Amino acid sequence: MPKRILISNDDGINSEGIHKLHETLKKLGEVYVVAPDRDQSAVSHSLSLFRPLRLDKVSEYVYSVDGTPTDCVNLAINGILRDKKPDLVVSGINKGENLGDDITYSGTVSAAMEGTLLGVPSIAISLVGRKDFNFDHALLHAESIAKYVLERGLPIDTLLNVNIPNTPHTEHKGMMITKQGKRLYDEPIVEKVDPRGKKYYWIGGDELGHVHIEKSDIVAVRDGYISVTPITLDLTKHDFLETLRSHLIKDSNDV
Amino acid sequence: MPKRILISNDDGINSEGIHKLHETLKKLGEVYVVAPDRDQSAVSHSLSLFRPLRLDKVSEYVYSVDGTPTDCVNLAINGILRDKKPDLVVSGINKGENLGDDITYSGTVSAAMEGTLLGVPSIAISLVGRKDFNFDHALLHAESIAKYVLERGLPIDTLLNVNIPNTPHTEHKGMMITKQGKRLYDEPIVEKVDPRGKKYYWIGGDELGHVHIEKSDIVAVRDGYISVTPITLDLTKHDFLETLRSHLIKDSNDV
Repeated sequence: MPKRILISNDDGINSEGIHKLHETLKKLGEVYVVAPDRDQSAVSHSLSLFRPLRLDKVSEYVYSVDGTPTDCVNLAINGILRDKKPDLVVSGINKGENLGDDITYSGTVSAAMEGTLLGVPSIAISLVGRKDFNFDHALLHAESIAKYVLERGLPIDTLLNVNIPNTPHTEHKGMMITKQGKRLYDEPIVEKVDPRGKKYYWIGGDELGHVHIEKSDIVAVRDGYISVTPITLDLTKHDFLETLRSHLIKDSNDV
Repeated sequence: MPKRILISNDDGINSEGIHKLHETLKKLGEVYVVAPDRDQSAVSHSLSLFRPLRLDKVSEYVYSVDGTPTDCVNLAINGILRDKKPDLVVSGINKGENLGDDITYSGTVSAAMEGTLLGVPSIAISLVGRKDFNFDHALLHAESIAKYVLERGLPIDTLLNVNIPNTPHTEHKGMMITKQGKRLYDEPIVEKVDPRGKKYYWIGGDELGHVHIEKSDIVAVRDGYISVTPITLDLTKHDFLETLRSHLIKDSNDV
């Protein structure tokens, strides 16, 4: 039976990354695209529970939604594809990195999180760079990783966060399985004064630093590798539950 | 030495929850408030790296920022309080829950995440309800939990996510240390037709369901308990790294 793939993203239905991903993944099965009708990079990534959503059919298998990436994946899996659950969700290809601690704020990753929550193995794919994006080798790797997940699946509550350096194919060094990295804590705020004499501030100056962690996503990408990080959606600090229970329930007067 | 506490939130500097929290926590030390100048519930929770931020001093110890909750905490710890690092960050008190899988989308929790990333023990506090918010007993618990964290600290990369039922003090059942809960996967989309004959959609109908997990935050709050969940910022699925490495690096032709 042919595989069914759902594609979504953060940059919107008209972005270059989603079109190219769509064309590429058609080789692997029946591909649906359900994506925001405009760039959602600057807005909330939560489910829209308090307003209705509009859905437009753009063409066969392609829909746009006036909502977030999370909305798109939910509307696709619980609505459009309710009787034909996809085998894979792929979010991207995003123009720009989704690395380290910042993935909790990422729309690209949030679409993959929603797919995972809804029981479908999911991948988020980002192209690391700021301009002159070259999708060619990113697409090769998107295809091979999608193929792997279609064949082997993923553990429960786990997605893959893939970041691909925006370098020519000949320059990259292959794939590295990585841990989530960490931003540097201690960057000072940069203070400036505008022409009217009023102060304003930049966070982290030109570029945020990072902590050097061996085999972290940030370090891998900096060194020219394609980073693949398995991410869990269970954020509970399990090994602290008992300690906290003994401290806080005992210490508290009212329980 | 007196303790120093930083307060921020998602609902903005003029919200009821932050004012009341400010008044209450003054009992425990020197309190700074650095919060968004308007309600940030519907926007991105990431750091604003690509535009400058304006900071206004509202009164002694109180500042507003034209940015996200994350921006506020970063600007406070790395800017305003650079030479006097706070001992505790408290985010809230939010009007509305921050439970289960949805915490990755929460502005209230993201402020506590940023505090944690910047090395300060942090707490997110939410009042679970939709209207007629009664802050009185929430404030009692905010104070006792803040006092605990000031005295004992928290493990690295770990914050506390606190959800307090919006019930009269006499009705709640005390505190429960909980695991992160899960939304129900399988809620169908509700389709409606507008007066012009065009379809629109609601996600999850009137209320999203949840998976019944013993001692999860969602179940605890439903049963009338104050939920305290220790949350880690390390999302790496550590026990899958080796498997993934053996599969993906070996299976891939180009590395």
